[in-house]
Amino acid sequence: MEDKPKITYLRGRAFVEVSRLIFAAKDIEIEEEYTTTKAHFEKLRADGKLMFMQLPLIEIDGMCLVESHAQENYLGWKYDMLGTTKEERGHILMLYEGARSFHDVAQPARWIVFQPEEKWSSFAKEATEKARKRYLPPYEKTLAENGTGFLVGDSVTIADCALFNILSYLDEMACYDNVLNDYPHCKAFVGKFSELPGVKKYLDSPRRFPPPDVAYGKEALAVLF
Amino acid sequence: MEDKPKITYLRGRAFVEVSRLIFAAKDIEIEEEYTTTKAHFEKLRADGKLMFMQLPLIEIDGMCLVESHAQENYLGWKYDMLGTTKEERGHILMLYEGARSFHDVAQPARWIVFQPEEKWSSFAKEATEKARKRYLPPYEKTLAENGTGFLVGDSVTIADCALFNILSYLDEMACYDNVLNDYPHCKAFVGKFSELPGVKKYLDSPRRFPPPDVAYGKEALAVLF
Repeated sequence: MEDKPKITYLRGRAFVEVSRLIFAAKDIEIEEEYTTTKAHFEKLRADGKLMFMQLPLIEIDGMCLVESHAQENYLGWKYDMLGTTKEERGHILMLYEGARSFHDVAQPARWIVFQPEEKWSSFAKEATEKARKRYLPPYEKTLAENGTGFLVGDSVTIADCALFNILSYLDEMACYDNVLNDYPHCKAFVGKFSELPGVKKYLDSPRRFPPPDVAYGKEALAVLF
Repeated sequence: MEDKPKITYLRGRAFVEVSRLIFAAKDIEIEEEYTTTKAHFEKLRADGKLMFMQLPLIEIDGMCLVESHAQENYLGWKYDMLGTTKEERGHILMLYEGARSFHDVAQPARWIVFQPEEKWSSFAKEATEKARKRYLPPYEKTLAENGTGFLVGDSVTIADCALFNILSYLDEMACYDNVLNDYPHCKAFVGKFSELPGVKKYLDSPRRFPPPDVAYGKEALAVLF
């Protein structure tokens, strides 16, 4: 029997949440270890587990995998979440990377960890504008046209996991000004994805962290810098 | 017979060069169209070819593929450049994404397009320090241990193409202070990769752009913003 995959990361969603959602969507049991001190982070570096000296780390199939895009593509390959035809593969990869770019410009840890609190609302406003301008329209259109509740085909892919990750912040946090109400297929997608059996179990568990807040920002800075 | 793949991008390497190198390494003939005006960029957007409103674009297998990581992963899959075993796949993906992160922190267009010329040398110095601290040591070690001149196995993968892309800037541009001389396996890798038949043909062609300069920076800003 294979060892359970193991995630080592901060106590937050940030750059490992898409992998957590992939495991959840496929109902794969995993272990988690949380890095809450600089000393623990330095020990992982000294042990040679972090090829580029950065978290998150996923230990799986005898490897220490780093780089979040690589982790998610590896899991997508291992668990058959990349489609089968050329057209499916191309669209899944494009929609997955688009959702990662969407995350890069709109996710809240960007300002909660690195910016003073009085600037948060203006960063959130700018993120919401970029979401409206560049990302929400193509995802709304893709979901409407596919009509299955998934982005491509009729089963969950890494594109869905990456989209749910960023949309769930927009859905949960008041700073995004209920923007999803203007994109009903995206809004419905969040609800439907949340109800996938493995995902529901994960979201209801203590392993699902809330969105980042002041305490998370402080801990992340103290561990990483 | 399949249509030739077609790249549409600026007149520079930047975010499509890894795909150009993948096509070159596999000796695949492609077409290229250069976006040199804002009007052409806006036409591509209006035509619906850019899902997230950004270049580069690769038209292939009847699709308009955007997002550079997605393009490179798709080409890697299509042309069998992702290994076969779990261990190969994991390591190729990790080394490929690491080289993309290396590019994000060290590639010269970052400062040549966006920063005033008097700041360029300090940005280059900082990039060189990050390369020494985080990226060159693991690539040096991986190349030394694998011993074939490739990062994984004994044939070219997307990880090699992404590594060559960033290392060739460090090798060609004086601002990086000959840093590769301290990493002999990385230096030798640049030479060996350049001699692959399809790559040599590409590098000797007018399609290979020089590193970015003042003129490139001006054109890129005029097209994109």
